[in-house]
Amino acid sequence: MENVTGYKCIQCGSEFNLDDIEYVCKKCSGNLQITYDYQFIKKNLKKSNFAESSDYSIWRYKDLLPVEDLSLKPVVHIGWTPLYKADKLGDHLGLKNLYIKDDGRNPSGSLKDRPGAIAVVKALERGEEAITCASTGNAASSLACLTAALGLKTIIFVPASAPVAKIAQLLVFGALVITVKDSYDDAFDLSIKATEKYGWYSRNSGFNSYTREGKKTCSYEICEQLGWECPDKVFVPVGDGNLISGMWKGFVDLYEIGFIDHLPQLISCQAENMDAINRAFKSDGVIRPVKGETIADSISISCPHDGDAALKAIKESGGFAISVSDEEIVHAIPELARETSVFGEPSGVAPFAALLRAIRTNKIKDDEKIVILMSGNGLKDIDSAMKSVKDPLTTSPDIKELEKIVSNGLV
Amino acid sequence: MENVTGYKCIQCGSEFNLDDIEYVCKKCSGNLQITYDYQFIKKNLKKSNFAESSDYSIWRYKDLLPVEDLSLKPVVHIGWTPLYKADKLGDHLGLKNLYIKDDGRNPSGSLKDRPGAIAVVKALERGEEAITCASTGNAASSLACLTAALGLKTIIFVPASAPVAKIAQLLVFGALVITVKDSYDDAFDLSIKATEKYGWYSRNSGFNSYTREGKKTCSYEICEQLGWECPDKVFVPVGDGNLISGMWKGFVDLYEIGFIDHLPQLISCQAENMDAINRAFKSDGVIRPVKGETIADSISISCPHDGDAALKAIKESGGFAISVSDEEIVHAIPELARETSVFGEPSGVAPFAALLRAIRTNKIKDDEKIVILMSGNGLKDIDSAMKSVKDPLTTSPDIKELEKIVSNGLV
Repeated sequence: MENVTGYKCIQCGSEFNLDDIEYVCKKCSGNLQITYDYQFIKKNLKKSNFAESSDYSIWRYKDLLPVEDLSLKPVVHIGWTPLYKADKLGDHLGLKNLYIKDDGRNPSGSLKDRPGAIAVVKALERGEEAITCASTGNAASSLACLTAALGLKTIIFVPASAPVAKIAQLLVFGALVITVKDSYDDAFDLSIKATEKYGWYSRNSGFNSYTREGKKTCSYEICEQLGWECPDKVFVPVGDGNLISGMWKGFVDLYEIGFIDHLPQLISCQAENMDAINRAFKSDGVIRPVKGETIADSISISCPHDGDAALKAIKESGGFAISVSDEEIVHAIPELARETSVFGEPSGVAPFAALLRAIRTNKIKDDEKIVILMSGNGLKDIDSAMKSVKDPLTTSPDIKELEKIVSNGLV
Repeated sequence: MENVTGYKCIQCGSEFNLDDIEYVCKKCSGNLQITYDYQFIKKNLKKSNFAESSDYSIWRYKDLLPVEDLSLKPVVHIGWTPLYKADKLGDHLGLKNLYIKDDGRNPSGSLKDRPGAIAVVKALERGEEAITCASTGNAASSLACLTAALGLKTIIFVPASAPVAKIAQLLVFGALVITVKDSYDDAFDLSIKATEKYGWYSRNSGFNSYTREGKKTCSYEICEQLGWECPDKVFVPVGDGNLISGMWKGFVDLYEIGFIDHLPQLISCQAENMDAINRAFKSDGVIRPVKGETIADSISISCPHDGDAALKAIKESGGFAISVSDEEIVHAIPELARETSVFGEPSGVAPFAALLRAIRTNKIKDDEKIVILMSGNGLKDIDSAMKSVKDPLTTSPDIKELEKIVSNGLV
């Protein structure tokens, strides 16, 4: 991989060769960032390469990815999800340049297929026979999806409370699923112990540095889909912090190779009961575990494993943090769907709920180019969706009964 | 629309101008087929047009579609779903050229976004203020999705038994949802009466002839994705018959304009308790209502409203009919997912179950180019998916408890 130079620790700044290390920093156990030779990439990669490329998937960005053997990629089509200009919603909110990135259109229904794909290629490049991850649900159901057709043994640790649709995906795709009593945080800890004990390759976010490299492809797509323009603000759902730091990495990569002329502000959108990163950002910058519950299961994380990288991303981007209530999240599901035709799961619509709060608190200018990142398909959590709507009307097949409904003004 | 010449009745063969008629044949009440001026299209449309097109959606085929004003199209991205070569599955089945078309990747999670899109454009071209449809679930949830961001009033009739995920989609997208006691067939009849009484534009399959025109885009994509080659056999899920007749129309269109050099055999895949079309095909060609139940709700239709067109498609293509049991369908969900990474709802995997039966009964040659059409995302029916799998394992966060699981050979 001529494009990659090595690792740099996010916490202590130590640098390492790729061969030196498996997961976290040898010196301080901090998370690592993959570093690139931007001069080398700049020489070989022009915008015209993309105009000529017919590969509309994350792999169109292979020159910016830490992978060697693309023949090992998962068989399903990942990425190049739609970026919609949300004109109806923008009109209602008084915003002229509002966009929504619908990452629920990925194969397993969430953005997690991006990081999963990179981790799977790395596992196969290393000749691993088994891959494992702990997950609130989406990272796991993605991994199970991606590995199914490849025949890579997959062991999943999820909290027993994960939505049934995500558990169903895991089981249907044939992963070995182990539900862990209590929380995601417990599942995470157990999966790390299992990786140490059994040698399974860990795809855990906030531990395996390659996941961030998959997530950053979402930023590449946003800029390319805007005609290589960078948005002014991006609203990102934040749980363990790996997504927002990955998104930031993507924008920085493009800036460093001269594809965009400025960087965006990243808005960290958390659920107010589970917002360890936002609390740290707003106070002394020290991440402390929080105790709470939220309907947004995908960002329900007490102790964020990539918190430091996330804080760095928010700060370096000049962004800010917004925490939203479960009530705001539940309302946001139909509101977003009815304005944009995009149906999101609770964590997926949290950035939209955060945008509404940002507008109410005058943090948005009407001509800014704003992207809401919608990270997960609403079909993944039907129970939560049903909390957001009223029951349907009911009739017998008799037109007279329908006439009563119509004449009562209900239709 | 210079490409369109008018309507032709599937039943009595009468021809009409587009302005003469709204829905069904004036003479015999049969369903209509849109007819095209293939010579005109041939003159203007070359394969090179597609090589140069950057519109990877159903609208890339606008020269073959009966729409005038593309500015009215739904905002979400429809079509150009992946066609995967299913090598792992093909190896296991002894088939060298097996493909799966994953139409669960459409915006609302099913193929129904294709016909819905055409119907929505026609409704808006006509200046309609309300659109309605009866549906087993997918056509409705698609219509609700597509109209949401357009602000077109949408009234939906579904059987009360529709899977909760589909009901949730309808409500979240803000359609007016009326559940009709008893069956889809009752919902269909009531919606037709409502169209007559209130003048709402009807998107009903097997009534509105434009739905077939959306469904045919799936055939265009299959051929283009195969490098403008036509498959030998296509396994199609069949409920009311509108999909298989639409698929046939698509292949015939391409054949008529010289884009493909032969036509495929279409295999009609129904649930054995609800297989009125297959029974007619295997006997005297007369469609009679059946009474039964099936887990495959999207193809659970007692009295198929486009049955004649479907029979014509099976016969003209030299195809055949396979009905599969609910047990085969349930088994097919994880079997397909584990071999191809594609998770389908029951009706979506019915064609795969039918392929397995076709292999067992020696109806398949190992070098044929075979496409399985997977029409709906598995996330749309989690209850059925859960019937197909075993419960997950469970542990406390204690590695010793995990060790017991591992040493028992369960992992």
